[in-house]
Order: sequence, then structure tokens, then C-alpha cells
Amino acid sequence: MSDLLRELDAVLESRKRDADAGDSYVASLHAKGLNKILEKVGEEATEVILAAKDAERDGERQALVAETADLWFHSLVMLSHLGADSQDVLRELGRRFGLSGLEEKAARGTSQRGTSQ
Amino acid sequence: MSDLLRELDAVLESRKRDADAGDSYVASLHAKGLNKILEKVGEEATEVILAAKDAERDGERQALVAETADLWFHSLVMLSHLGADSQDVLRELGRRFGLSGLEEKAARGTSQRGTSQ
Amino acid sequence: MSDLLRELDAVLESRKRDADAGDSYVASLHAKGLNKILEKVGEEATEVILAAKDAERDGERQALVAETADLWFHSLVMLSHLGADSQDVLRELGRRFGLSGLEEKAARGTSQRGTSQ
Amino acid sequence: MSDLLRELDAVLESRKRDADAGDSYVASLHAKGLNKILEKVGEEATEVILAAKDAERDGERQALVAETADLWFHSLVMLSHLGADSQDVLRELGRRFGLSGLEEKAARGTSQRGTSQ
Repeated sequence: MSDLLRELDAVLESRKRDADAGDSYVASLHAKGLNKILEKVGEEATEVILAAKDAERDGERQALVAETADLWFHSLVMLSHLGADSQDVLRELGRRFGLSGLEEKAARGTSQRGTSQ
Repeated sequence: MSDLLRELDAVLESRKRDADAGDSYVASLHAKGLNKILEKVGEEATEVILAAKDAERDGERQALVAETADLWFHSLVMLSHLGADSQDVLRELGRRFGLSGLEEKAARGTSQRGTSQ
Repeated sequence: MSDLLRELDAVLESRKRDADAGDSYVASLHAKGLNKILEKVGEEATEVILAAKDAERDGERQALVAETADLWFHSLVMLSHLGADSQDVLRELGRRFGLSGLEEKAARGTSQRGTSQ
Repeated sequence: MSDLLRELDAVLESRKRDADAGDSYVASLHAKGLNKILEKVGEEATEVILAAKDAERDGERQALVAETADLWFHSLVMLSHLGADSQDVLRELGRRFGLSGLEEKAARGTSQRGTSQ
């Protein structure tokens, strides 16, 4: 799974450049503009929260994973719309946690947040 | 950056098992329970939306990337709390987009959503 | 406008008891269940936030008022679904602010929150 | 409870004009600006959703009413910040539902939304 987000960035970038919005969900989101993309981010965040509450009750994780994928996906569309991508987010996470992304260094956990993460 | 999320999963798993919540932000979230974790997911989603609106206006992407990292991070804590992790989300995204995560296959874009993504 | 929320409670109560969900948006929300109602609350909260950001920029308040009405409306449907109503919310607000709801006592502002509201 | 929201508007208006933010939670929100107010709206929406899920499970409505009061309160602070108030929202709700706010006309239910409310 190592480069999947990079692949997804490339898919999203290609859909963003696609002139024909009719054929692609992503292109149609870009055509509708940032507010429509952010409405989707908000909707998916709510659905993640509901799925998590339901997963806590019944132990069913499939919907939770699917909704989290929806949330990450729409946040990637948002980043693409504004000229950023998944690698910017991973770089920020790596910086905070002292992770290189190149090898396993679990629980090193340096933090730049004032309090240990 | 290829294995960063896998590394982060390992950090989060280790913090979840950590008995001493006082030392770690993540351990303290687990100790407070799912509602507290989901409140953070909701807060960060709102901050992402506000940062995106501000980025659209002033072209400044740094806060947007930082807030998106916060959102992804807290959604990973949520998944960890409920027994899932980033690889489940990536597998779901790969399945939807026909991406293997192993090589660049941009814009192949098969979709299982009824409408092309 | 004084009893409008009370009237709206009565409308919502009547729609909730209505067996024929096909004819009424509110009845159809009840039929779909609490998650669907809460998805709407989350969606409308996002739309309020976006409308507020746009109102700040362009001074246009009409969309903001309409989205806030949507948010309040769907939160009333939620309360109705769970056996509460607008009067419970007003009573809570009155208690916090030392307001009677019977006459104008502006800015008396006693608070029961530890910090002055 | 009939004029409680009008009284609350007056309290909020007075706090907004208050130069000394240190003494009042509302004044401090205005001083911090619209983003901070909208973060609170987003937080309270999340807390309403969590309280509703918990109320569904355990029948406890007190937290749900308190969180809904928080959501309405912070949306009123937002409206006040942008030059609107509760009466604008009630007028919009009355227009949609054919309610006068002056007398009980339950379930008349004219709608201006294309589909019956």
C-alpha cells in the first residue's frame, strides 16, 4: 500500500485538469467550487462520527472504514482544489512525530506540540 | 514518505497500550473515551473547513495542510480506538480507484460507486 | 414572532405522528431514523459555517439567515424524534442567562457557567 | 417563554458593544473573531450529534437539550457578530411554514421548498 496516496494524488490531479466535468465526480466537484467540496468534507466528517458511534455499539468496523475513506478522499479533493496534496499532509505528520516514512521507527514520538503526542 | 502512515499506526498502537495516560496526548484521549476522540474529529473538520476558506482568499496553504494533518491524525486515533488503522482506509481507497499502492497507474479510475469518480 | 417556535413544535409533532411518510419531508426523516436526521444537522452546521465566512466577506446576510434556519429546523426535528422540543431549549437558555422569557430584562446576564457569559 | 430569544438578542447585543472583553465570554468571542465563533458552532454541532446518539441509547435527554442550547447560543453569537439576530431566523422559519408566530396554526404546513415539509 506504500504509494497508494501518491497514486491517488495523480488520479485527482488528472481529474482536476479534465475539462469535461460531466464524466467524473471529482471534475464535477471542482466545477461546482470550493463550497461544494467543503460541504462534502463536513458531511463525511458527520458520517464518520455516526459510524464510529455505531461501531462502538455493534463492533462493526466496515462502515467506519468506508466513511473514513470518504472523509480522506474528499479532503484530498479539497487539497487538490487549493494546490496541495497528500504528500504535504504526510510530511507534516512525519515532522510532528519524528517519522521518516522510510522505515519503521515506532513510538519514537518526538513532538513539536508542547505536550507529548 | 511511503510507509509513514504504517509507522504512525505503530506509534498510535503503542500509545494505546500505554497504561500511563498522563504522559501522552494519545493515551489521554483513549482514557477519556470515544466521545472525546470524536469531539476532536469534529473540531478538526471545522478547522479544516475554515482554513480552506482562508486559503482560497489569501493563497496561504500552510494552515490548511496543518489542519488536514490534525484531522487525519485524530481520525487515526479514532480508528485505533475501535481496532482499525490507516491500512484499512488505504485498502478501501485502492479498491475504489483500482489502485494497487505498488506502482503508478494514474487515472485508471475504475469506480464502484455507480458514477465515475 | 413570540410563539412561533411553539407553533413549529406542534407542526413537527403532528408530522411525526403522521403515518404517511411519502407526503412530508419531516415524516420521511423520522422514517429514515436518527442517523439520517443527524446527518442533516451536520450538513446544515457546515453550510452555516460556509455562509458565515461568505457573509463576512461580502456583507450578504440572507444565505446566512436561511442556513441558520435550516440548522435550527433540523435540530428541532432531532429533538422531536427523541421526545424533546424547542421549549426545553429555551428553558435551558433562560436558566443560564437569568431570563424569564416574559419581559425585557436585557443584559442582566447572571450566568451559571463559572465564567460570565 | 415567548420573548426569551428577543431578550437573549438584547443581552448579546450589549455584550458585543462591551469594550472590556475580559469580563464576558461573549465579548471575548467577538474579540477573537469570526473563526473562533465558527469553531464553537462546529464543536457544539458535534456535541449535539454525540448527545443525540447517547440519548437514543439510554433515553437521557438532559445532555441533549443542554448541547442544543449551546449550539443555538453560539449560532446567535455568530449572527450578532455579523449583524443579524434570532428574529431573522424566526421570520425565515415562519415564512417557510406559514406560521405567524402569533397564534396556533399547527400542521397547516405550506412550504416554499418544492417538497412539503
